[in-house]
Amino acid sequence: MKAHVIVTLKPGILDPQGEAVRQALATLDGVEVERVRVGKYIEVELGEADPSGAMTALRAMCDKLLANPVMEDYRIELVEG
Amino acid sequence: MKAHVIVTLKPGILDPQGEAVRQALATLDGVEVERVRVGKYIEVELGEADPSGAMTALRAMCDKLLANPVMEDYRIELVEG
Repeated sequence: MKAHVIVTLKPGILDPQGEAVRQALATLDGVEVERVRVGKYIEVELGEADPSGAMTALRAMCDKLLANPVMEDYRIELVEG
Repeated sequence: MKAHVIVTLKPGILDPQGEAVRQALATLDGVEVERVRVGKYIEVELGEADPSGAMTALRAMCDKLLANPVMEDYRIELVEG
């Protein structure tokens, strides 16, 4: 089973990387860029074929390793049933 | 208008970061992890309210700054109409 995991900073947490990207984008000609937040995007392929088993394993991976639960939120999208 | 930009390595490109994450995930108890690819997830808020104008601006941002077109693919999702 395939899954996409998206890890983002929690809303109140400052994002200096995103601010740096915003400033860089502002130097391009074009529309105004009001805000940028940068996160991580992780594609995972699991041996587990059962969606609920895969979801349980992915939550454990996020809690223990992929995300920092103090500062980050995550969401998991299963791609193949 | 808000948008999500996801930047991923093109299929043929080696991803040492993803492989390192896969090895780390393999040390956790649980299901087998066959493959991991790591990408970037960028949330952008634009002053532009017109979807087609926003899409044009976002494509230019990706081509010039957010993605490396030699090694990376990107996809853009407009979030608010």
